[in-house]
Order: sequence, then structure tokens, then C-alpha cells
Amino acid sequence: MLRTKEQFHEKLFAMRPNVYIGGEKVGRDDHRLKPGINVLDVTFDLARDPEWKGLATAESPFTGEEINRWAHLPRNAHDLMQKQKLIRLGARRVGGCIQRCMGHDAISALAICTKEMDLANGTAYHERFLKFMRRYHADDLVGCCAQTDSKGDRMKRPSQQDNPDAYVHIVEERKDGIVVSGYKMSITQAPYADEIFVLPTRALMEDDRDFAVAFAVPADAEGLRLVTRPVWMRNKDDEDASPFCRYGVSDCVVIFDRVFVPTERVFMCGEWMFGRRMAMLFADSHRHSYSGCKPGVSDILCGATLLAAEANNIQKASHVKEKLSEFAAASALAYAAGVTAAVYGQKTDSGVFFPDSVYANVGRRMTGELIYHEYNLLTEIAGGIAATLPFHEDFQQGENVEHLKKFIVRNPEISAEDALKIWKFIEDVGTSPMAAWYKVAGVHGGGSPIMETIALNMDYNYADKRQLARYLAGIDAEHDDRALRQTSPGLEDHPN
Amino acid sequence: MLRTKEQFHEKLFAMRPNVYIGGEKVGRDDHRLKPGINVLDVTFDLARDPEWKGLATAESPFTGEEINRWAHLPRNAHDLMQKQKLIRLGARRVGGCIQRCMGHDAISALAICTKEMDLANGTAYHERFLKFMRRYHADDLVGCCAQTDSKGDRMKRPSQQDNPDAYVHIVEERKDGIVVSGYKMSITQAPYADEIFVLPTRALMEDDRDFAVAFAVPADAEGLRLVTRPVWMRNKDDEDASPFCRYGVSDCVVIFDRVFVPTERVFMCGEWMFGRRMAMLFADSHRHSYSGCKPGVSDILCGATLLAAEANNIQKASHVKEKLSEFAAASALAYAAGVTAAVYGQKTDSGVFFPDSVYANVGRRMTGELIYHEYNLLTEIAGGIAATLPFHEDFQQGENVEHLKKFIVRNPEISAEDALKIWKFIEDVGTSPMAAWYKVAGVHGGGSPIMETIALNMDYNYADKRQLARYLAGIDAEHDDRALRQTSPGLEDHPN
Amino acid sequence: MLRTKEQFHEKLFAMRPNVYIGGEKVGRDDHRLKPGINVLDVTFDLARDPEWKGLATAESPFTGEEINRWAHLPRNAHDLMQKQKLIRLGARRVGGCIQRCMGHDAISALAICTKEMDLANGTAYHERFLKFMRRYHADDLVGCCAQTDSKGDRMKRPSQQDNPDAYVHIVEERKDGIVVSGYKMSITQAPYADEIFVLPTRALMEDDRDFAVAFAVPADAEGLRLVTRPVWMRNKDDEDASPFCRYGVSDCVVIFDRVFVPTERVFMCGEWMFGRRMAMLFADSHRHSYSGCKPGVSDILCGATLLAAEANNIQKASHVKEKLSEFAAASALAYAAGVTAAVYGQKTDSGVFFPDSVYANVGRRMTGELIYHEYNLLTEIAGGIAATLPFHEDFQQGENVEHLKKFIVRNPEISAEDALKIWKFIEDVGTSPMAAWYKVAGVHGGGSPIMETIALNMDYNYADKRQLARYLAGIDAEHDDRALRQTSPGLEDHPN
Amino acid sequence: MLRTKEQFHEKLFAMRPNVYIGGEKVGRDDHRLKPGINVLDVTFDLARDPEWKGLATAESPFTGEEINRWAHLPRNAHDLMQKQKLIRLGARRVGGCIQRCMGHDAISALAICTKEMDLANGTAYHERFLKFMRRYHADDLVGCCAQTDSKGDRMKRPSQQDNPDAYVHIVEERKDGIVVSGYKMSITQAPYADEIFVLPTRALMEDDRDFAVAFAVPADAEGLRLVTRPVWMRNKDDEDASPFCRYGVSDCVVIFDRVFVPTERVFMCGEWMFGRRMAMLFADSHRHSYSGCKPGVSDILCGATLLAAEANNIQKASHVKEKLSEFAAASALAYAAGVTAAVYGQKTDSGVFFPDSVYANVGRRMTGELIYHEYNLLTEIAGGIAATLPFHEDFQQGENVEHLKKFIVRNPEISAEDALKIWKFIEDVGTSPMAAWYKVAGVHGGGSPIMETIALNMDYNYADKRQLARYLAGIDAEHDDRALRQTSPGLEDHPN
Repeated sequence: MLRTKEQFHEKLFAMRPNVYIGGEKVGRDDHRLKPGINVLDVTFDLARDPEWKGLATAESPFTGEEINRWAHLPRNAHDLMQKQKLIRLGARRVGGCIQRCMGHDAISALAICTKEMDLANGTAYHERFLKFMRRYHADDLVGCCAQTDSKGDRMKRPSQQDNPDAYVHIVEERKDGIVVSGYKMSITQAPYADEIFVLPTRALMEDDRDFAVAFAVPADAEGLRLVTRPVWMRNKDDEDASPFCRYGVSDCVVIFDRVFVPTERVFMCGEWMFGRRMAMLFADSHRHSYSGCKPGVSDILCGATLLAAEANNIQKASHVKEKLSEFAAASALAYAAGVTAAVYGQKTDSGVFFPDSVYANVGRRMTGELIYHEYNLLTEIAGGIAATLPFHEDFQQGENVEHLKKFIVRNPEISAEDALKIWKFIEDVGTSPMAAWYKVAGVHGGGSPIMETIALNMDYNYADKRQLARYLAGIDAEHDDRALRQTSPGLEDHPN
Repeated sequence: MLRTKEQFHEKLFAMRPNVYIGGEKVGRDDHRLKPGINVLDVTFDLARDPEWKGLATAESPFTGEEINRWAHLPRNAHDLMQKQKLIRLGARRVGGCIQRCMGHDAISALAICTKEMDLANGTAYHERFLKFMRRYHADDLVGCCAQTDSKGDRMKRPSQQDNPDAYVHIVEERKDGIVVSGYKMSITQAPYADEIFVLPTRALMEDDRDFAVAFAVPADAEGLRLVTRPVWMRNKDDEDASPFCRYGVSDCVVIFDRVFVPTERVFMCGEWMFGRRMAMLFADSHRHSYSGCKPGVSDILCGATLLAAEANNIQKASHVKEKLSEFAAASALAYAAGVTAAVYGQKTDSGVFFPDSVYANVGRRMTGELIYHEYNLLTEIAGGIAATLPFHEDFQQGENVEHLKKFIVRNPEISAEDALKIWKFIEDVGTSPMAAWYKVAGVHGGGSPIMETIALNMDYNYADKRQLARYLAGIDAEHDDRALRQTSPGLEDHPN
Repeated sequence: MLRTKEQFHEKLFAMRPNVYIGGEKVGRDDHRLKPGINVLDVTFDLARDPEWKGLATAESPFTGEEINRWAHLPRNAHDLMQKQKLIRLGARRVGGCIQRCMGHDAISALAICTKEMDLANGTAYHERFLKFMRRYHADDLVGCCAQTDSKGDRMKRPSQQDNPDAYVHIVEERKDGIVVSGYKMSITQAPYADEIFVLPTRALMEDDRDFAVAFAVPADAEGLRLVTRPVWMRNKDDEDASPFCRYGVSDCVVIFDRVFVPTERVFMCGEWMFGRRMAMLFADSHRHSYSGCKPGVSDILCGATLLAAEANNIQKASHVKEKLSEFAAASALAYAAGVTAAVYGQKTDSGVFFPDSVYANVGRRMTGELIYHEYNLLTEIAGGIAATLPFHEDFQQGENVEHLKKFIVRNPEISAEDALKIWKFIEDVGTSPMAAWYKVAGVHGGGSPIMETIALNMDYNYADKRQLARYLAGIDAEHDDRALRQTSPGLEDHPN
Repeated sequence: MLRTKEQFHEKLFAMRPNVYIGGEKVGRDDHRLKPGINVLDVTFDLARDPEWKGLATAESPFTGEEINRWAHLPRNAHDLMQKQKLIRLGARRVGGCIQRCMGHDAISALAICTKEMDLANGTAYHERFLKFMRRYHADDLVGCCAQTDSKGDRMKRPSQQDNPDAYVHIVEERKDGIVVSGYKMSITQAPYADEIFVLPTRALMEDDRDFAVAFAVPADAEGLRLVTRPVWMRNKDDEDASPFCRYGVSDCVVIFDRVFVPTERVFMCGEWMFGRRMAMLFADSHRHSYSGCKPGVSDILCGATLLAAEANNIQKASHVKEKLSEFAAASALAYAAGVTAAVYGQKTDSGVFFPDSVYANVGRRMTGELIYHEYNLLTEIAGGIAATLPFHEDFQQGENVEHLKKFIVRNPEISAEDALKIWKFIEDVGTSPMAAWYKVAGVHGGGSPIMETIALNMDYNYADKRQLARYLAGIDAEHDDRALRQTSPGLEDHPN
């Protein structure tokens, strides 16, 4: 089933009110949530657009029906590349974060890890999860992912915390389900999701058993509260708001206050030794998602910088051209890391195809290290005007309108109206609250650079390099190049 | 005379209303201007504080009285170093830009250039300017500097523009003065200045003669309009607002619409061949000012990052300590460039002591290249919370207060109240509109990095390096190391 | 046919002597050329090793026989990826440059461009070239590429030079062929190649017609002289030389002094409008080759740094692990750029499959920008010993041997013998003449970073980003995402 | 006394032979040591040149005579700035390392630390050291410093090593002196020094008491062996060798095999609690020395890059000018750090004036981080020719001389002869063994960047930044700006 956005809204606005903004409980139709919902709308529209069939959609193995690709479990390298493209397409439509990859990354992690737990322990999580997925496909649901716990003292593991709610955990096991409590934070998109997937956020030890818990809950479940911080543009209500201003995002502290989760929605329950695996499956899948989203963001920053250069009539200056080419590199290298993570991905026991973690991590780390620099490039080319431009109203009313219209034109080829649109866009993209959000998300979303460094220190094949060096140094007589033979299944005898 | 801040306010609020915000004319007592005025207040308080006598003050050569150092023309290397310190001290008091250096840099430029014009052309600008300064000292006035023109098409010089108002220029010469029109932009502090110093912004050719104009006008002169963009913190009116939130800034598009300037206030009038000189005197002095201000900003970012690290209880992690040391370098190298620009400065014909341009430029460029990176460091250590923290009200009212108070504590040594103050501070410093302003100002204030590169390509002694290389390569038989002998007058036989 | 290395030697040593070193004519069996020949030997061995069949070999479309992949014209994305792997495999075997990619890149460029010239002009170069290739396959020949002209004054085009020999050009056209003169420089591998492929190095205008010339000549043709600069390791003749020391390289100034080229070997003759195309086909193919070679070099540098860290017993220090992970990124991102250039490559009219130029260029530029930094990492971890270690002989003879054996051990797990091997390897890899060559080649081989910036400024789809930004800014009502639909033929419906 | 270089040679060549190269004992007149001795000669010549009186010389407080500044203990900020200049002057004369700063830094450290030990413990080291200095001045001696021990296992302190000789230590205490054994490494200049100053290299604990030892020994003392690695240019013996090629350097492993040191030469003997202090006094003084030497090296690299740009006729290209300005920054910022370390230095109890450690460390770290990048800039501008230029002999003899003379000219303004000199210079500066040495020394000399990071983490006033942030965040009511009041004695009331 492919819902319309109107159907999505209808279900959404009928949910139990449990969203809080600024100390007040608000409905999901609050105007401050609208910019985020506008983003979701695009994901429904794209799926119903014949133009993007097969990219924005896929075929459900359960229902045989065409489904939104966000709900699809990747089965091969091509699926992963299509996901990348869809994220980039979405990013370009909404001016940045398409917000649905977290839900997608969560279902991949759950599908893979439930299978692996079952194989190790003889449990039956995987079938339970697939059953859940059948309904998820049939109803075209939207899930978000709540992974990041509030964490408390970072020098201590979950079970060692003074405040047990620092991590979401099982407080009671019942015959028909479990009761959970605790805090998740920085949870994007939760106020306009149907479902919340909950996963552990880190490696666990035996005494952290209660914290080894994964499940799905409706976003308005009893005991669940979404303390929400929306980001919206100051001129979002303007009649003449630009497309960029229509979109925004909300993040939540999600409070679990003795939330009951029925057994059929529980996908991990005490398997502490799979804590790290589940956490990394989500993280690595999400790092691969960044290889689609970040190039989209770079596309926008590149375009914005180009417009600023044109408005300043400096687009042919040598240093401007060199700076523009940095966006090309930032975008293309990140995208390449994602493509290659797909090409060298692997089929897991669950049948879900998973990106190579080294390529996913080097790509994500690079984007996290570059994001501030990219905003710096925009600022350098745009000039001080991005922070000192008079307010929009000054250009619309009062005694200075004519002066300001003359003031704003710097390139004779660009009208005052377009010049103003360009500079407001530069301000929106570069110095607005949304820009602040994108910088922080650009560093931390999917794991900050230091997390990718840690992942690389575990996953990268240093032993191969060491062995190679020992051979070349004359210490060992041989070395083994087998690592080079790795190929994505199917590409080996690529027919073309 | 050293005015009290109350005296400053009194004069300010009595000025002719010519400030516009959002299309409306407002009084200088508008609450949105208050954060900027609060900054100026600090500069009055410091000068009257015996603790800082001799640093925040100096002796006027005209009146013999103790004056605010901001109005003092530097007479030796020590004066330049005291200016640096005063700027850094101010920056630490107001959380960043102390806003008065532009006025200071303008009077240095005017004092020097008027003397040089007189020597070249037999004019009498310098005496006229000194006369103006006498009153400036006597009345303890506050001046800002309007240098940056709106510029229009950057591929054309002023006289080639379709829109002549793209640069401020003389439209009429009268017996008793001149009439000027045009737009200046990104002019900081103008709505709470007594005087505006106007200088040319670039090199000029003969047909740009009308654009070679420098003068001082009262900030509420007839025909002058200040289209103002204030920046203020969202919680500035909170009773419990932090010191950081009390301060802000305003920038203006300054519209000169046939403003009359009487002769005694005109300090350049048609001397196009001194356009570049005047522009660079201001720019280089201002770049030297950055060597005091930017270390202050780095001090704040360093401290904020430290608090974030403590709140996350990760202050002892190796990568955190490495990152913190980057602030030490950013701050100390910028400060060192300023000290050395002072030590190797030169006495000009006017008697004003001027910083060495190479040291001033390399220091300013480094800070402009690093500022985004420093915010990046803060973001890396602080984590996503800087962009996703619930609003302040959520911690104060409604049903989630107790949960959120538990949520906010990550380091058992830090109370919920202090933790909240820390995270709000991180948000204010790192992701607020003020933060956006500081990033842009950090790149462009005093000239963006590309401008310093251009200045270095003109001022750096490349010929010396070329000659040295030719000697070492065996092409020329000798080279000359005289460049190394340069010493600041007085240090040569430093007595200690 | 797959020659043995002995067969290769036999033909090589029978060539007309036209190699010069240090002002003397030497035979191709000169010991200083041996390290380079050792590299070529590896390429013959790999092709005959059943282990690497299909990677080191391919099937000739002309002879149907198994041929060395270096002589194979890529027909699909998989071929390009196999080339990448082969280059990396070779790099790991010989400690760096495998030297045969230039010949490979040349035949790709010639195959593609001859077809395009024929289609445009009705010439018959392509068939002529394929005929040449048949023999090339049948005889398993080794070709190198002479592209870079000596260039003379870079501000002038070829026909404007005072010295016409600054670029190789046609001096006479005869019925049976052409006569060419001029200088090529930095030509790798020429003294141990069977054939030299000559291509133009830049865009040409109509009056540069004589410089629009491409052809193949035997490396010992009459009138051809190879002024050769070999690089060899100081201890290459040691009995106990490490594998790394066995290999080296030679570059030449190639002097064409009225060299006759028979018609059947001429593949471009006056088609100045294809000058840029031919030059870029070689350059972009070569930039793609770097995506295989540079990861191999990074593998070696990474391994060397690891060994140094172990020998210093600091391999677990946090900053060491962070630095090591930089090699992972340098290697994996470069490799990913190559894989993606292949995946998004295109079939040309000639049937040859060509890598995407944007991915090839961003990858190559990144490697060129990083190479010095990678050596810096090695130096940082290894310490000063890389430059101050006593000579090898000090460890072998004289009165200090026992002291030095005690001196050299820093990690109790590593014997004196192995420690010495490690430090000599660090010295060979990091501070030897070979290291200097790798740094320079790492910056310039295939085009220096500034050349890739220029290529990106031409090839990157900036118009797409501009259009996107104009849409998001509200200037244009729509934008077009079609650029995202690009897929490598065959991957679209990837079967896996 | 100011010796002539001939007097220096005479004493040197009369020393007991204890220098080893390549397993053989050689005289101090070995031709491979000559390039280093040539450097020392310059330091003698400068001191006797009236041109540099007061810079290259100072007045001895002991003898009242004019002495070489290298032997002078700094008494004020001006002395430290003169040292900086002298080092830069020397660097420019010899194409890089002037080699005498280590001896200078050692005497500063010894003078200061002996005084502090005496004050703490009532010993009499300081007077003993001053007595030694009287003779050092009177005889115009040359000292080098042996600080870096071979260190063995870096995870263990000296007394924990399996091999006690990993650090120099006391093996016997006699009535008239001590006997020491152990290895020092990377000791520059030792084979052409009169005296070797020996200092501990790290912090020590109580059981490391035997390793807390400092003293001076003649460089040919019994039991002392200098296993030497000289670096010399390949064409040093050419008649037409360029000045750059005349100079070189030697480093040693210094073997102490039961060397007797008479009491009057022992300056620390068991004071383990001063191990770190002595080590850091030398290190910080040496880091300050880098602020003179590194700008000199940057001057040379800048000049070399300029010559390469001219020879390529690309000196006006925008990207070339931007790159050249990076040298200006590298040089001027490093120099500024040194000047400011002097200005904010402090008089120690010994009367010796010592540079501020924060400025010394940020400056040194920056240079250590930039050195590879500077070579990269040179390589980028110079092109591949730096690694592929035919050998010198090819331009002098054989059949290709005329061709190569035409080949080498790229800028019509530069003769073949000068072009060849330029390219050989580029090769010597950029890719020779000397270049490799300068890169490694540029990273590690005076302590690698990670060592400066560690020093900053101890010395930088983070508490001040933390307190400032707590004030601005509203946590603490006040903060203290006293740190800003620091001024160098004497500059406070700078008279100018």
C-alpha cells in the first residue's frame, strides 16, 4: 500500500496527544511541527510519483505489493545504491534532512540482529519481527528510531549509573510483554511518526542485561512523552516563503515512564551480548545513509555558494572557482564511499544486504569533518551580508524600501527581487537556526568522527597492512593479498 | 573626561530618531538595541575602574586629562599592546565583540593619512582632524566607523557603477562643507554611537575623485538613516539570563541621502590617490585589533568546550585534551601576531605608532581561517545536545520538569541547575543567532582571509626571499640580510 | 601470448643502445636500470600465476587468447575495477609504482579518440590502431606513455614557443609516414619498454596543428634518445636487501631528433581540435589508475607506520591509533572514488568503457593533496631515528656492533635483527631517494591537484546545483533531479 | 675571546679519534664531516664580522669580553629576541640548521636548574657551573647537547628497562667524580663540538635516581664513541657547487662506555625530582630557538618556490600567489610566537631570562605541523622535474648537452645556465637526503607536535578559561582577568 500524505495526516492527527513544546502539551497539528510534516509529505509524494517508481518504491517480499522504499529491507547492492539515491533525491527536495532513513536503518538492524540472535540462542525474534514488518508494509507506516540514550555519566555502563533512567531498560517482565522506563534523547521525527523503534545504543556487559532491549511502540503509547524541540525558519509563514523555508525538523527527549510493550513487539530482551552488534548494525547502516544525504546537503551548499558568487559577480574569480570545486569533492567522495560500501556489501544470514562497514565509516567520518568547512566556504564567498542583511520587513514596508532595493543589487544581470531572494536564501541556509541544526547534525548524526575512528580501529584490516610491511621489510618471507579478491556477489561476473 | 554610562545613555536617547528595524522607525531606547548598549556600558565602566587605569585609559596629549583608551592615538609599541589587552579584556567581559575598536582604528587611520596628505599636497586636514579630536577627548565621545560601501558590481570601480550610491560620494561641494550620498553596509554599532567616521573602502582612480571622501558626522545627522539589524539572544529578557545573554550587537545599512558635512568635519575630499592608503590604514589597524579580540573569543570557546567536556564527564579523554590544546594555539598565536606587530611597528609622520602590516595580516588571516574550526571543536565535544536540548520553558513548567532535571545530569559532580546552565550556555555560544553572527564576523570582520592574502602579496618582502634563494642556488654571489635588523624603536636597547 | 620475464629480458637487452645516464650511453642491462626491470618482471609473473587469472589477465577480443590485463581495453565496469585491483596488487608486490598503467591508459585513450576522430572526420585511425593492438596482444608487448612535453614557456601555446622542440611535433610529412622532433619529460619506464606511445599533452588551437600528433614507436627507434634518471635504493646490492629495496624506477627526458614514424603507427596527425580530448582521455584514465595505486601506497605507509609504532612500543597510544585510522581513510576513499568512477563509467563509441571523470578527478586530487601528510604521519610515529640511524655497515662491522644491537631494541618483543630491519625499512620508505620520488609522484603523477581542480571546473555539473539552489530559494518554480538517475549500464537491474 | 674558524679547526682536528662512520673509525677531518664544519665556520665568521656585533656577539658577565652570543646566557627579553634573529641569520647563511642552538639551550637550562637545585637542596651546582662557563667564554668553546636517550621500551621508566644503557646513568660514584654509561641518540653536531652537555630527557621517579645526571664532557673523552651519520649533498665536491650544497649536518649515537666525569663538570647528580624541570628547561628553550630557525627555513623554501615559479613562468598565477603567501604566514607566525615568548618571558632565580613556555610551545608545534606542507607547496609549484631531472653530468658531457640546454629553458628571461642552477637547487632543497633530514628534523627537533600538546596541557592556563566560561554561563558571579595583566619586565613602562 502507498498511502497519500492526507492519509498519513489523518492517522497522525488522531493520535493521543503526548507531544510537549516549551512546557505545554500540544497537538500534532501544532504549526511548529508542520515544517517537519512537510518533509514527510514529500516522501509520500515521491512514492506515488510514477517518475520515481523503483527508486522511491520497491516490492514487498511479504505482500508482493509495491511499497515505499523506506520500508524495504535491502536485498542486494543495487537496493543499497537505490537507497542512497533516494536519500539524495529527498534531500534536494526538502533542502536537507529527509528524516526517514533512521526508521529504515532500524528495520535493517532489527531484521539482521533478530536472525543472528535466533541462530545463536534458538529464540524466535526474527519471525516475530517479520510478522511486524508485514503489517508495516501493508499499512505503509512511518517509523522513527530511538537509539541514543541520555547516557548520564559516560564513564559508567548503564547498570552502573546512579540514575537508572539514563538508559531505557526493562523494569518489569510480564507474561504478555515487558514494561520499560528511561530517557532517549536527540530523537528526530518522533512527533510525526507512527511507530518508534527502540534499540540499545552501546556494547553491554552481563549485568546490563535489563538494558538489552529492542522493540517497537506506537508513538503515542501510554506512558510515552515526547518533549519536542522543533526548528523552523523565521519566515515560514510568509506567503512568499521559499521552498527551503517550508521544511524543518523536530527532535525529542523521549520519556519512557513505565511503557508497556506487548510480546509481539519485543525484538530483544536481555541478550546483552548482542548489544554492541545491534547498536553497530544501526550505526553502520545509518553511516551509509549519510553517503546519500550529505551529498545532497553539499549540492545545496554548493548551489547556494554559486548563487552568492553570482550575486556578488565574482563567480569567475580564481579563488572562488577553487572553493566551489571543494564542494564537488565533498559530495562526490562521500557518495563514492556509499556506492563502494554497497558494491562491497554482504548478504547477512537474514537475507538482508548490508553495506561494508569500512567504506561506510570512512565516508561518514569525512563528511563529519568537512561540514563546518563547507559552511565556511559559503560564508567566505557570500561575505558579511549573510549576518547583517536588514530584516525582510525592511524591504517590504517603511521609508527605506526604494533605497534598499537599489542597495541590494550587485550584479546588473540580477533583479532586486531575485537578489533579495538569493540573500535571504543565503541567510536561511547559512546563518539561521536551521543552519545551526545542520552543522551539529552534520558532525554528530550517525556518530561523530571520533566514533567512526573507533569503528575503523576495530573493523579496518590493519593486520593485512602489517603483514605486507613485514614482507616488504624482509622480516617475513611472504604476505597474502587475498584481501584484494573481495568482490560484491554478482559484480564478479558483471555481464556488461 | 570619563563619562559615566548614564551620561552616555542620556545623550544617546536624546538623539534625533533615525534608526529603523523591520520597516519601522524606533527610538534608541528600543529593547532590541539594549544588548549592544550593554556592551558599550562595559567600556565606560572599565575606564572608571581604578583597577584598569592605564590599560582602559590613557592620557590625552590635547587635554592632558585621562581619557578612555578607545579615543587615544597610539604613540608607541606599548600603546598598541595595551590596546590589544584592552580588547581582550573587553571581549571577556561581554562574551565577544567589544565593538569600539572600529572607532579607534578609524581615528588612527585619519590621524596618519591626514598628515600624509598634507605633506604631499600642502592641505591642512591634519590640524583640522586634531581639532576635532580635542573635542572628542573632552566630551569622551563614542565613534563608530562606516567603511564598507555596498559596492554594487564588484567588477567595476565606484565611478563605473550604474548605481552611483553603491559607494558614498560627494554630490555637492559648498563653501561651508560638502553634501554626500550613498550606502554603507555591515556597519556595526552605529545606532548607539555619538559619531560616525566615514572612510573610503578601496583603491581609487582619478575618475573616482568624488568617492575619495572621509569625514565625521553625528549619528543622527539630517539625511542619515540607520537600517538596523540587531542580534539578541532569545532569553535576554529572562530574569535568570546569564551574563553572556545580556550582550548583543547591531549592524546597519547606513543610508546617506544628501547629508551635509561642514568643512571642519571633512578629512579627505577628492584625494583619490590616497584612497587605498586610507582604506589600508583602517584595515591594518583593525586587523591588529583582531589580535586582541579573537584571543578573547577563543578564550570563551575554550572555556565553553571545557564546561561541555566536564558536563559530559569526558574531560580527561585523550582526544578531548588534544582538541582543547587547539584553542590554546589559536588564541596564543593570534595574540603573538599582535604583540609582534606592535614590537615591529613604526612611528608615522603624524606621530601615531602603527602596527607592522605583515604580522597584523598573518594573524588576522589565521583567525579568519580558524573560526569555523573552533566552533566545530565545541560541537564535537558538546555533542548533539547543543541543537536538540528542550526549550528553557520545558525545564521550568509542565509535567516533565522532574524527568528533565534527572535527564540533564551527566556528571555526578554537577547539579541539575548548573548542568542546565552549562548546556544553555553551549547553545547560546554555539548555535544561537549570536553564534551565527560570530562565525560570519570571525571570517569577514577586518577583511576576509582572501583580503589578507592580497595584502600579504603586496606587503611581504618576497624580494628578500628571492634574493636569498638566488644566493643559495649559486646564481648571485651575495644576498643581503638587512631585513633581519629591523627592531622596534626602543626595544633595541631594551634596558632590562 | 603471455611472455615469461626471461623472454621480456631477451628482447629488451637486444635493443639498440639509446639510453643515457650521467652523460654516458649505457646498455639496458645497466645495474641502475635493474630495479625498474624487477618491477616489470612482477607484472609478467602475475599474469602467469594461475592464482590471479582473470585479474592479471583478460581475453583478447582480437586473438581470443589470454593476455596480460595491461594490454586489455576495458569493456565494462568490471574491467575497470579489475584494473584497479591489479594495480593495487602490483603496488603491494613492488612496494609502490607498478609502472604499467601509463601504457594501459594510453591504449584506452588511443582506442577511444581514434574512433571519435574517425566518426567526426571520416579518417581511418581506429582500424589502424586496432591492427597495431593485434600485434601488441600477440607479442605481449610492454608500452609506456610519453605525454608530458617539456613545455617551455607555460604562458604560450606550442606554436608560439621560441623553441619549437618544447613540444613534440611533426617536422615533415612523407608518403610513408611522418618525421617528428621535440622533447618529452618525466617519462617513466621508457628504458625498459618495448614501445612508446606518444600523445599530445594539452588543448590545441588551429595553428598548433603540427603538435596534434599521436603515434607509437619502438623504444629504440632511430633518432630517439632516453636521457634517464634511475632511482635506486642505497642498499639494493646488499645480499640481505629487503624486497622493498629490490625495486626502483627510471624516468627520462625523451629526445625525438627527427624520428621517422611509419604511417601504420600514426594515430593522430594534425587533428588539433582533438588535442584536448586525447590529452584528457589519457589523463582521466590515469587518474582512475591512481585509485588503485595510491591505496596500495597507503597500505604500505600504513603498515610501515604500524611497524614503527610497534618497534617504539607505542601502538596502543590513543593519538597513534587516530593517526593510523587516517591511512584507512586515505586508502578507502581513494579506492571508493575509483570503484564509483567505474560503476558510473560509460561505454564510448569505440566500445571501450571509460571511468566517470568527476569521480576519477576527486579521487586523484584527494590523493595528491594527502601524500605529504601521509609521510608526515609516518615521521611523527617513527621519530627522529628515520633520519639519524647509523649506517647499515655500523651494525655489521667495527667495534660498536654489540652496543648498537642493544641500542636498537625498544620493544622487548622484537629482536635486534627485526628491529634493525624495521628501522631500515622506515628509512627506505620514508627518507630515501625513493621516498622523495614517491612524494613528488604522489603530487604530480596523473596531474597535480590544480589540474584536477581545473578538470572539475569543466566537468562537474555545477548547473544542476545552481538550478537546485534557485528552486529552493524560490526564484525558479522547479528543478530537475534527473542527474540522480544515472546508473552504470547493467547495474540498474543488478541481479543479486 | 672570539676564535677564528682556523683556531676552531686546529683544536678540533687535534682531538682523540672517536668518530665512527659506516663501521670505521675516522678522523674529524673526514670529508663527510666537512659540510657540518662549514656550518660552524659561519658562526665563527659572523661573530668576528663588525656588521653583526651585538647580534652575533654579547658581553660576558664573567670576563667582560665580547663573546659569541651562542655562549651567552640571556639576561632580558632583548637577548632572547637577539638569539632568535641570530638563528634566523645563521639559517639563511647555511641554508638551514645553524646547529649551535642546542649548546646554547643547554647552558640556559643548566644555569637555571643548578640555581634552583641549590636553592631547594643547599647544593653548590650553580657556582660550579658558572666556573665552567668562565672557561667556556674565555676559550670560546663550542658545545653541543646530548639530551635524547635511546629510551628502549617507552612504556617503562629508565630504572625499569631491561637494558640499563637505554638511558645514560651513573654507574659509579667516586671521590673525584662519577662514571657514566648509556646511549644518547640523534645527537646533532657532536663530531665537531669541543664539549658535550649531557642532560636528562624526561621526568624521573625516586628509583630513577641514577639517571638524574647532568654534566659536560670533552667530545673526545675516554670511553666516549660517536657513531656518526653525516648528511651531505651529492654534489658537494663539485667545483661549481652552490652555497646550499656546501653545508650539511651529522647526527650521532653517542655511546658512553664507563666515561669518567670529574666533579667540577658534574651539574646534577641524583636530584631525580629535578629531572622533569631540567628536561623541560632545555626543551622549552629549544622550542623558542625554533622560532628563529624555522622562519629561516621557510624563507628558503619560499624563495626556492618563487624561483621555481619564475622558472616555470607561472609566478603570476593566482593559485601560485596564494600558495606563496602561506610561507609568509608560516614564517611570520612562528617568528611572532618567539618574539612574544621573549616579551612575556621571565627572569629566573639564576638571573637568566627564560621565554614563556606557552608561546614557545604553540609556535614550535605549528612549525612541526606545517613543515611537510611547506615542502608540498614547493613540490606543487615546481612540478615533477624535481624528481626526474637528468643528472648533473648529463648537462656537462656526452651527446645530449645541447638538447638538454634547450630543454631546460622554460622562461625566456632565464638563461639555460641559471635555469639549471634553479632546478638543481629545487632538487637539493626539495628531494635530496638533506631535504629528508629537514623534514624529519622539522617534525621532531625540539619535540614533536604531540610533545608540545602535552606541554600545553600542563602549562596553558585552562583554569582561567573555565572560570571565564562559568561566569558568562551564569554559574559563578565573577571571574578574574588578572591573567591579562602579565607584562614583560621593562615593557610595562616602555619609554618610547
